[in-house]
Amino acid sequence: MIQPKAVVLLSGGMDSATTAAIALDAGFEVHALSFRYGQRHAAELAAARRVAGSLAICDHVVLDVDLRTIGGSALTDDLPVPKDTPLSRIGDRIPATYVPARNTIFLSLALGLAERLQAFDLFIGANAMDYSGYPDCRPEYFEAFARMAALATRAGVEDGRRFTIHTPLISLSKREIIERGMALGVDYSITLTCYDPTADGVACGHCEACLLRLKGFREAGLEDPAVYDGLGSERKRHPGE
Amino acid sequence: MIQPKAVVLLSGGMDSATTAAIALDAGFEVHALSFRYGQRHAAELAAARRVAGSLAICDHVVLDVDLRTIGGSALTDDLPVPKDTPLSRIGDRIPATYVPARNTIFLSLALGLAERLQAFDLFIGANAMDYSGYPDCRPEYFEAFARMAALATRAGVEDGRRFTIHTPLISLSKREIIERGMALGVDYSITLTCYDPTADGVACGHCEACLLRLKGFREAGLEDPAVYDGLGSERKRHPGE
Repeated sequence: MIQPKAVVLLSGGMDSATTAAIALDAGFEVHALSFRYGQRHAAELAAARRVAGSLAICDHVVLDVDLRTIGGSALTDDLPVPKDTPLSRIGDRIPATYVPARNTIFLSLALGLAERLQAFDLFIGANAMDYSGYPDCRPEYFEAFARMAALATRAGVEDGRRFTIHTPLISLSKREIIERGMALGVDYSITLTCYDPTADGVACGHCEACLLRLKGFREAGLEDPAVYDGLGSERKRHPGE
Repeated sequence: MIQPKAVVLLSGGMDSATTAAIALDAGFEVHALSFRYGQRHAAELAAARRVAGSLAICDHVVLDVDLRTIGGSALTDDLPVPKDTPLSRIGDRIPATYVPARNTIFLSLALGLAERLQAFDLFIGANAMDYSGYPDCRPEYFEAFARMAALATRAGVEDGRRFTIHTPLISLSKREIIERGMALGVDYSITLTCYDPTADGVACGHCEACLLRLKGFREAGLEDPAVYDGLGSERKRHPGE
């Protein structure tokens, strides 16, 4: 039997690393796709490369798309990243780190790669904690994207093939994501979830992404193996660097 | 009354130039969007700049997205562009110049810009001659994209706003497009429709895009004012260059 191919969006954070491990565990030949989109910190791509190198994936494609031209987000523009938001208030509005139409742009580029590879499965690590805040992290959005994709592509139109947008984390808490990833052997020490890392790629520990991640590890009864700023120099380097 | 904003995809060809003129005529404040996507010929972007400069648009954004990373098309890869296809056979299959998911990628980026600008109208010059060959030029595809866009964006989710994907050329023949554009004062001499221009940006006259365009002008009883390769040196330069 031929191994089916999947395109997996890989940012280098804990969610996308877990998603890639789930796609591999499900038997797919994984083609990871990352973006050099004008993110303020190159550390994000370095993390994606570390994660890709740690998993048995087929290849890792890095695609340039300059979202700074669109602007409007703290992730690409010189806007402040919110820090130390009370946990109870994270996710109750669309945050400053929202990039306009980002998942749509990233999934569209993944669809283009999938069509060229003859892959019909796309994986994205959207999850439950995100979708109350980001419109493009909700199940009904992904269903609408899949319906559009079937009409957009040669494979959909000529061969009646459907594309499946897999969101294996969609209903999991951060704790459940971590437990699932640990069971699959994901090395979270090399992932970078932070919205505002130092120039060296060390997580800040105070942005909403860091706060949710740290809470997830606490709830799982585990220590987060990643490096955080201000936790002592012995933990400021990624293993192997 | 505040003038509504529209994002118009502008390639520099006759269809997108006509579409931009239609959006202006309809009263929109036009923000044109072009892509440096790894097309083999920089002449396409030069034509987009000429067209943008000839119209009363608000601004012209050029966004980098490297579709060569995806590959699979004669427009980005070193594959032959089909020449001298019999007119009766153009559009009866998906051509080599099809770029995987291109309209989805371009509309997604337009959606991101629209969301940032608070624009709810997107214009794309897809037309009747194309949609039998390209899956992502059919009305049902654009409807599916609009449904997805409403679920993808902050404006759609928080304010219940819909995005309208305008395809004013969708049911027009090339002849009708030309007649509409001429009535609106579009200067077709500065547009470039060709899939395979010379290094100087001169249209080949033999690719499917050139053949359909020339047929349209013939049927309209007009001479195409654009420059074509092999038509004598006095017509090889764009006016004003």
